Amino acid sequence: MADKVLIYSRFPKTMMVRFAERFELLDTGGKPAREVFSAEELGGIRAMLTAGGSPLDAEAMDLFPKLGAIVCYGTGYDGVDLKAAAARNIAVGHSPGANAASVADIAMTLMLATTRRILVADQYVRSGDWAGSKQSPMMRPQAGMPGRRIGVYGMGEIGRKIAARCATFESEVGYFSRSKYDLPYQYFPTLEALSDWCSVLMIAVRAGAETQHVVDADILKRLGADGYVVNISRGSVIDEKALVAALADKTIAGAGLDVFETEPHAPDALTALPNVVFAPHIGGHTLESHVAMQNCALANLNAFFAGKPLPYGVKSA
Amino acid sequence: MADKVLIYSRFPKTMMVRFAERFELLDTGGKPAREVFSAEELGGIRAMLTAGGSPLDAEAMDLFPKLGAIVCYGTGYDGVDLKAAAARNIAVGHSPGANAASVADIAMTLMLATTRRILVADQYVRSGDWAGSKQSPMMRPQAGMPGRRIGVYGMGEIGRKIAARCATFESEVGYFSRSKYDLPYQYFPTLEALSDWCSVLMIAVRAGAETQHVVDADILKRLGADGYVVNISRGSVIDEKALVAALADKTIAGAGLDVFETEPHAPDALTALPNVVFAPHIGGHTLESHVAMQNCALANLNAFFAGKPLPYGVKSA
Repeated sequence: MADKVLIYSRFPKTMMVRFAERFELLDTGGKPAREVFSAEELGGIRAMLTAGGSPLDAEAMDLFPKLGAIVCYGTGYDGVDLKAAAARNIAVGHSPGANAASVADIAMTLMLATTRRILVADQYVRSGDWAGSKQSPMMRPQAGMPGRRIGVYGMGEIGRKIAARCATFESEVGYFSRSKYDLPYQYFPTLEALSDWCSVLMIAVRAGAETQHVVDADILKRLGADGYVVNISRGSVIDEKALVAALADKTIAGAGLDVFETEPHAPDALTALPNVVFAPHIGGHTLESHVAMQNCALANLNAFFAGKPLPYGVKSA
Repeated sequence: MADKVLIYSRFPKTMMVRFAERFELLDTGGKPAREVFSAEELGGIRAMLTAGGSPLDAEAMDLFPKLGAIVCYGTGYDGVDLKAAAARNIAVGHSPGANAASVADIAMTLMLATTRRILVADQYVRSGDWAGSKQSPMMRPQAGMPGRRIGVYGMGEIGRKIAARCATFESEVGYFSRSKYDLPYQYFPTLEALSDWCSVLMIAVRAGAETQHVVDADILKRLGADGYVVNISRGSVIDEKALVAALADKTIAGAGLDVFETEPHAPDALTALPNVVFAPHIGGHTLESHVAMQNCALANLNAFFAGKPLPYGVKSA
């Protein structure tokens, strides 16, 4: 009999094919597990696959008395209460680095699309306004990448890939993270200092309780009227209301957002703005990134059912 | 009395400010010069500023018997009949390299926006389809940059900057140009061989009579169903009808286009397609790129009126 794995979040069926070949999947489709499966079925669950951002606290874990492994699909695990998991001897795994290039690339895509105003540009051509020589204030020349000051917040695998890419674009790169590394970029000891210096803030920090709303009205104001913020980490890092206000009153010039506070919802006040480029959390959403994340998740699940430590485990808090 | 310069193409007034400080400008606004100025006025013209892509043949030159300098704003000079200019002792200048980073960056922007489907992504969020969990076939995972084979057609300053950027994105880079250079990218002896190998063709070749429609139905077919073409050079390099057909019948996956055969017009059959990202020839359209192009054009004009050779001259054919 195949080992059983609970699919705790909503994942497209196509992403589950390789798991279904190896395991018997109990797929919640993203609904509360109790609504989909009986208490008896849930009581037998030893391992689950989840999206790292999905809330999973002590109470939720207690629905699964035999749970031994929470395997996050992707690099994030901010939804998982690590202390509660450790207290219950539940191993937590993720897919470190597997999607780093893909996420760094969506950060670059959003930055370039926003600063070069590609949505406006595309519409200017499609609408016939260009052919009609119609004036478009949004199409005025903007600062380009050479010499632009890019601030990277967070210097993990994704932050490093963003920094390397920006350097090739002939931009100046600075960063803030808890630790200073031996890297060819200027280090800033605080997010405030980085934001005063840079005109584009790239948020690549690992999200958690301590990063909740750290990018607030003050930080946005420091970016200034020619400033941009790009977020590919988690929506929780930005105070979304402050962001809407800063974008609406031109405190900053624009934003590129792949993540939101309450996904899959983006507030109407935000989506009505012309100076933002949106993506529906597709940072890690490339073919090779999915294969790499699946490799990590499968390795974690196989190891767990073989009674071994998770090869891609999260260190407990 | 200030030296007179004819503004032969349509340029925004804001781009002409520095020229107006130094010269008396006769601005055609892009209309035929004879419609705007008298034969006597045109007869006195010794220098003109033009967009390099604007047609300027022997007959047009003969309207200006005293013409001694054709100064192109930007790197291109494909509209200028160099033989006719040489025969009339007219010096031709341009702004080499001044906009290379800016143009390379719009190439990267268009490639990333197209391959990561950022227009669809943005609309998916704005429309509420994401919040409504609506299926979107266009949002299926696509191949990302790592390992992707990028073919750069043309290895001038812009091509080199595109290649360097793509390499940082962990892509494989190959190129075709008339000459093989000492560069860390695979050289292909023909455009056909490059197109067979790559999945994204970046057109960065200097346009002219010999590159007219070289990217045709055959080349597009070689890119294949997962192939993309990005053009930031000149519209003339692509057979636009063949491109529309290849995009419509999915011979290739998509395109990113900053240039068109008959600017500022883009055919309706092209602009109706969802798998293309358009820009209205804004490759060189950044603040620092304009300053650099103006520096070159002003240096050319100042040298000409001082009786010196153009510092940024085009070698005659």
